[in-house]
Amino acid sequence: MKAAFQGVHGANSEVAATMMFGKNVSTVPCARFEDVFNAVARGKADCGIIPIENSLAGSIHQNYDLLLAHRLHIIREAHLRIVHALMATPGTTMGMIHRVRSHPQALAQCSNFFLRHSRIEPEAFFDTAGAAESLGKERLPHVGALAAPQAAELYGLRILLNHVENTSDNYTRFLALARKPWKVRTGVPTKCSLAFRPVRNIPGILFRILGVFSLRDIDLLKIESRPDPRSPFEYQFYVDLAGSPAEQRVANALAHLQEVVSEYRLLGAYPMGTGEVYGSIRGGHGKRTRRGT
Amino acid sequence: MKAAFQGVHGANSEVAATMMFGKNVSTVPCARFEDVFNAVARGKADCGIIPIENSLAGSIHQNYDLLLAHRLHIIREAHLRIVHALMATPGTTMGMIHRVRSHPQALAQCSNFFLRHSRIEPEAFFDTAGAAESLGKERLPHVGALAAPQAAELYGLRILLNHVENTSDNYTRFLALARKPWKVRTGVPTKCSLAFRPVRNIPGILFRILGVFSLRDIDLLKIESRPDPRSPFEYQFYVDLAGSPAEQRVANALAHLQEVVSEYRLLGAYPMGTGEVYGSIRGGHGKRTRRGT
Repeated sequence: MKAAFQGVHGANSEVAATMMFGKNVSTVPCARFEDVFNAVARGKADCGIIPIENSLAGSIHQNYDLLLAHRLHIIREAHLRIVHALMATPGTTMGMIHRVRSHPQALAQCSNFFLRHSRIEPEAFFDTAGAAESLGKERLPHVGALAAPQAAELYGLRILLNHVENTSDNYTRFLALARKPWKVRTGVPTKCSLAFRPVRNIPGILFRILGVFSLRDIDLLKIESRPDPRSPFEYQFYVDLAGSPAEQRVANALAHLQEVVSEYRLLGAYPMGTGEVYGSIRGGHGKRTRRGT
Repeated sequence: MKAAFQGVHGANSEVAATMMFGKNVSTVPCARFEDVFNAVARGKADCGIIPIENSLAGSIHQNYDLLLAHRLHIIREAHLRIVHALMATPGTTMGMIHRVRSHPQALAQCSNFFLRHSRIEPEAFFDTAGAAESLGKERLPHVGALAAPQAAELYGLRILLNHVENTSDNYTRFLALARKPWKVRTGVPTKCSLAFRPVRNIPGILFRILGVFSLRDIDLLKIESRPDPRSPFEYQFYVDLAGSPAEQRVANALAHLQEVVSEYRLLGAYPMGTGEVYGSIRGGHGKRTRRGT
């Protein structure tokens, strides 16, 4: 299995690839997210790994746009807790460090560390794994990098401090995309991701759309409206639901949905991620017990 | 009017402050978003300006968390189109530039420019306005900065190229927060922002929640579920609706809503932003004409 991802080796997307496909997956670094999609579409990789939402920063609309612009299918998902480890060249001790490089967002997520160590200056870098890579090359004795712990070994660095992040609530959900859809299997808890635009000028359209699912006892796992900045009163909708298109009630709901929406796309049907941490919005009317408990 | 904002002078949040309160607003730069909230809470500023969602990057959950952790009220909103201008020290021409500094996200949003000018290297910086500020101090002849056009004059730089961004779809929605709520006025198109958690273990809870609004012909302008990474089956909901709590049907809906949700907060009732660009989700049943057209 060859998986394309955005960034350099040691990036969180690469960690997510091993979560989804095991340690033996071979990974192909790409400069931009668009390149990840193209690598898969053109057969240079079997699948592509993209982040789609983060618990602190929200849904990554740009990657939804790329999903809609390309004809790939979601075949897997994984939820990765984002850990920032402080790493440095072997021989460097905490007391020697004057500067720590990483992506500005990662540096901000470790602001408490910089408040506690006021002699240490943060340095902005393009990405977290890239900061580790550059330090591995330059081997500066007074500089550290904040990146995923996996990046340390890769670039010959030593971890001085793990979990430098302010909060443990930082999770990113990653998707794996392929040219062909995942083969739906009964007995495997399955999730469907949809994107659509509601039909305009129909009163009560949102209520009608949700009725499609709730009247069939289908749980929604995500619902999000995304405004279109250029077209007032136009918006995109993202919905994830619990169920497989192989189930009759889900197939019926998806057919019914297309009566009330336009620009509909089933982005993929795929196994619910292990270590599933995302909540379920109880869309149905029927009495239900909680899954997984 | 004294408005606190995150960043340095020339930041987009400061531009948004002038959109909301006019050119004469005096602005107070803060290091972190948390500092903006504290500046308002402690009376060091009359209001605070925060970004809450971006058309490409999604809702900024961290700022929703701060809204819930503090007791401030949303009193205004503004939608700002994000423009990246290339600026440099006076005397510098395009041909002289070898390096352009900005926030990695801004640099990525201008990737086409760097593809067209392969001799120009991007340089990561903490923020866009900060990149302009540093260049204004260092006055390096071969370096440019990508920032809001407003930053150029502020730091004695000249704009060499406007609209360097790849796409014109990049809008950020900003909120103004104050210690006291906005005084609701009839005749002023008004918006309410709510946050809540649905009551657990009630079948069909999402349908019930939306019924609260749709049965009263109240349009929803935003709906978003946010999973709680630490508590499976727990999630936060963000809803914006068209209407004022002074209207009976809205007041009734908000009272009804509290029967089916927990941890309810009315984050604010405020005038709909001029240059409102966000779409309306037609939640109601009644026949309606489009507003503003």
